[in-house]
Amino acid sequence: MATHSHVLTDAASGTWVESWDAESEGFSEYAGPPWAVRKRTLRGGLSEGVDVVILDNGPLRAYVLPTRGMGLGWAQYRNVRLGWDSPVPDPVHPQFVNLEARGGLGWLEGFNELLCRCGLASNGPPGRDGNAPLTLHGRIANRPAGRVEYSVDLEPPYTIRVTGQVEEAGLFCGRLRLTATYETVSGSPVLTVQDVVENLGGQPAEFQMLYHLNVGAPVLAAGSRVALPFRELAPLTPRAAEGIDAWDSYAAPQAGYTEQVYVAEPLADENGRTLAVLHDPAAARGVAVRWAVRELPCFTLWKNTAAVEDGYVTGLEPATNYPNFRAFEREKGRVLTLPPGGRWQATWSLVALDTAAGVAAALEEVKRVQAAAGPVVHRTPQAKFSRV
Amino acid sequence: MATHSHVLTDAASGTWVESWDAESEGFSEYAGPPWAVRKRTLRGGLSEGVDVVILDNGPLRAYVLPTRGMGLGWAQYRNVRLGWDSPVPDPVHPQFVNLEARGGLGWLEGFNELLCRCGLASNGPPGRDGNAPLTLHGRIANRPAGRVEYSVDLEPPYTIRVTGQVEEAGLFCGRLRLTATYETVSGSPVLTVQDVVENLGGQPAEFQMLYHLNVGAPVLAAGSRVALPFRELAPLTPRAAEGIDAWDSYAAPQAGYTEQVYVAEPLADENGRTLAVLHDPAAARGVAVRWAVRELPCFTLWKNTAAVEDGYVTGLEPATNYPNFRAFEREKGRVLTLPPGGRWQATWSLVALDTAAGVAAALEEVKRVQAAAGPVVHRTPQAKFSRV
Amino acid sequence: MATHSHVLTDAASGTWVESWDAESEGFSEYAGPPWAVRKRTLRGGLSEGVDVVILDNGPLRAYVLPTRGMGLGWAQYRNVRLGWDSPVPDPVHPQFVNLEARGGLGWLEGFNELLCRCGLASNGPPGRDGNAPLTLHGRIANRPAGRVEYSVDLEPPYTIRVTGQVEEAGLFCGRLRLTATYETVSGSPVLTVQDVVENLGGQPAEFQMLYHLNVGAPVLAAGSRVALPFRELAPLTPRAAEGIDAWDSYAAPQAGYTEQVYVAEPLADENGRTLAVLHDPAAARGVAVRWAVRELPCFTLWKNTAAVEDGYVTGLEPATNYPNFRAFEREKGRVLTLPPGGRWQATWSLVALDTAAGVAAALEEVKRVQAAAGPVVHRTPQAKFSRV
Repeated sequence: MATHSHVLTDAASGTWVESWDAESEGFSEYAGPPWAVRKRTLRGGLSEGVDVVILDNGPLRAYVLPTRGMGLGWAQYRNVRLGWDSPVPDPVHPQFVNLEARGGLGWLEGFNELLCRCGLASNGPPGRDGNAPLTLHGRIANRPAGRVEYSVDLEPPYTIRVTGQVEEAGLFCGRLRLTATYETVSGSPVLTVQDVVENLGGQPAEFQMLYHLNVGAPVLAAGSRVALPFRELAPLTPRAAEGIDAWDSYAAPQAGYTEQVYVAEPLADENGRTLAVLHDPAAARGVAVRWAVRELPCFTLWKNTAAVEDGYVTGLEPATNYPNFRAFEREKGRVLTLPPGGRWQATWSLVALDTAAGVAAALEEVKRVQAAAGPVVHRTPQAKFSRV
Repeated sequence: MATHSHVLTDAASGTWVESWDAESEGFSEYAGPPWAVRKRTLRGGLSEGVDVVILDNGPLRAYVLPTRGMGLGWAQYRNVRLGWDSPVPDPVHPQFVNLEARGGLGWLEGFNELLCRCGLASNGPPGRDGNAPLTLHGRIANRPAGRVEYSVDLEPPYTIRVTGQVEEAGLFCGRLRLTATYETVSGSPVLTVQDVVENLGGQPAEFQMLYHLNVGAPVLAAGSRVALPFRELAPLTPRAAEGIDAWDSYAAPQAGYTEQVYVAEPLADENGRTLAVLHDPAAARGVAVRWAVRELPCFTLWKNTAAVEDGYVTGLEPATNYPNFRAFEREKGRVLTLPPGGRWQATWSLVALDTAAGVAAALEEVKRVQAAAGPVVHRTPQAKFSRV
Repeated sequence: MATHSHVLTDAASGTWVESWDAESEGFSEYAGPPWAVRKRTLRGGLSEGVDVVILDNGPLRAYVLPTRGMGLGWAQYRNVRLGWDSPVPDPVHPQFVNLEARGGLGWLEGFNELLCRCGLASNGPPGRDGNAPLTLHGRIANRPAGRVEYSVDLEPPYTIRVTGQVEEAGLFCGRLRLTATYETVSGSPVLTVQDVVENLGGQPAEFQMLYHLNVGAPVLAAGSRVALPFRELAPLTPRAAEGIDAWDSYAAPQAGYTEQVYVAEPLADENGRTLAVLHDPAAARGVAVRWAVRELPCFTLWKNTAAVEDGYVTGLEPATNYPNFRAFEREKGRVLTLPPGGRWQATWSLVALDTAAGVAAALEEVKRVQAAAGPVVHRTPQAKFSRV
């Protein structure tokens, strides 16, 4: 297949480009639909030096942040903007994030992406796990990719993809590598994430991954709803229990709102796949997340309908575990161990829904999968999900 | 009014210039006095990547550091150099400052400015304030400005100004913005500081500001004196009490000298404004700081007449509070709370005094304001000022 | 003497070059042997912004890292590669190293050099020494040089050298400066290190220096051996005592191997100089380290024959002290104190051995020096060397 590809960053060979534009118009023989891959380097303030790779398949533009552990800054599909307005407005370079700050909560000062990976050696709250002091949600989101490459297939279905490698390693500290790929095809509302995590070290290594996928306005508004097929769902905390009756709907922004977190065991279809759907009050716009339950058996719903100024946002979070302290998740058997040379992978996708028909079809699918088992909604925190 | 202006940095739009020179000579229609605004980017060592904006009104040059929270590196007015020689010689980029280091004293490794702002959420010593671990003097001085713009009025009085915005924000961490402006007019020895701090968050936010204004040689020397009108003045600590008899005069550099800090309630004139004056032994050169007591009701005098190599310096520090731990200042009602959308502002100025007449006039003014109330000098620390 | 020199970095004047190539071919009058001095700036990932200065004397190339405290990344002399394969593959910019992370072990995330200096105010494990929280092996390796200059003598012996200054200072934090020089002459397998450490402060300052010189394959392999003349040698820990019978030979890489550390009092020749030799199983390739016992009275041997993936490496470490916590070393009189203006210096060298004859001669020299006193090998940790 005729494929155009290019290495944008390769630390080992000193390769890096400040700016790059590859556009379909530039390929003289090419007669397919328009596309573009662009590279920018942000300058100034807290964004100084942040690399952005933009995948443009026509109606969809995805802004990938290699500098922030291959996170996804935001995306736009027609009239559907995916992302949110964090109190921290622009992408933050890791040089300005001290994960140890604020008692291990420094991660919060750089958090504003549509997709922020939490891992690799740990995620969840800060604390001391044996001899290891852990910081909130781990280190991967504040590590720059050492290798970034994109490719475009110049034949149907005109696939565009960008791959980045991010290392989380240190002597006596383990040696994990994330290889993250974002892929989309011409004209599609679907962005596929293909992640591989390898243990390059000579010893077994613990591993956790939570996909912190965050959506605000316009998909999130008063009256927005979320749906997913599940066996059981429970509030993570007493605070979340207060809102259990309305766990799947959203209130208007409210100053002083304290986050509410729900955890669920997703139910899969006959192929082992499931989905979660978030849509606006009119059910005219939304987003679906599709994943394999075998790869990501845990789902967390983060509701943070705080004031707009404080970050009005909800998180749909498929993961290998629930966002508890690692020691608790280990106890519950939800921390993976990769043997030397071992690898983990997950392929999942983000689908922008820009029509009422699209939202309805996704909700219908949730219903169909749910039919296999009645959903249990616990009104209080459950011992298997969290410390009660 | 004919005004020339330019945006030097705007992170939101990716604007940033490495180097910039705007000079009066470059404006063909302009027939006024000479001025210049220059932008430089420091390179190498700990200064790598530090932006400097130089305001030049003819006799006065001020070196503003957007990368260090809009601090003022140093200034020169005729034969009066304002600044000091810190053990850390050049401006330090925040990437090399870990505020958490040395038990929360990491700030000291980047401290060498004429003016270093201490705030915004807190200033004072490190420690645990409830759930919040605070580091020395807060974070604002080690945050780069995300937007920097200057302007020059091409008509009398030929005002030159530079404005920078610095964000101190994070999810669940508050959202404060400093907008700092330095302004001066052609030929003037006066540099005016106009600061606005806004609470952009949806929740009330605590706020503190201390202007750490630091002066060394040649204004500071053995026999230099400081003067200000005040109601009460007290040593902050027993160590400072040892030197109470000489609180307003300075000794020669002395190796091993331990800092002495005095705090005062300044007395204002009929317009609510006050001043502090520092001058050299001959009373021939000096500096005055002028401010509004309503905006900055607390004054701290920092005496650090250590060996020249260790930083021979004194600080004249108008502030919203005294430099105690935030919990103590809160108890005394000296921590401000900004409501959502609330703003605080202060306008004050720095005046270079290059003649004996100028020094004498400033001292005369201090005396005149002092006449309204006899100054009380406490010989020991006072409960209202510090933990005794 | 005709000398070519150039300043590559000078933070004080804003001098910095991104890339530089000086080659013998470029000097029209020059008819001596070929040499080159090159400067590169690494880009991408964790290496973003790391300066590398390459000294090339013909057969020897040394890669100096000004950005990492003038460390030596790696070197190559004919078929002898000096360096190792750390789990962290490329040089890491200090902006990505948080020394406070992992309970003061963050240094390990940037550690991959052939030579990494441990100091200046302290080295050894992290902990609280009085009021001072210390991090592993101190700060100097993660401080960029503020001034870098090289020179080449265009006459015999055609000496090439690069010098860098690194500051470790802060208000109330001391003021130490390292001036590190690497020097080599045309065609030579010898790289000489000349270090000067100055106390620029006005107060006495404690100082420690350990040269963490690390070698892996191909010099290190199963059956490699180390030799040095010494009075006494002991295991630092019970774990090291387990391997005392084989302290001077190396096993194959072994997953899960826990490091073993031995400490020795080196014996000097009639000129006060000594050496340590590491060679491969065939005694055909190796490396010698030569130093003055007066300058570096302590020698540490670090054996870390872990899996190749985890960093198969050994360290030959001449130092002012043993790698214990500073408080212990102080108690034993092995922490130096530099008076104000005081300076410490050491000149030592690294010799690549690329022939069996070269290895044999070096081993012969070890034997000859050892003849002066019988070596004592303790089978257990000794109170004078470590906390037993």
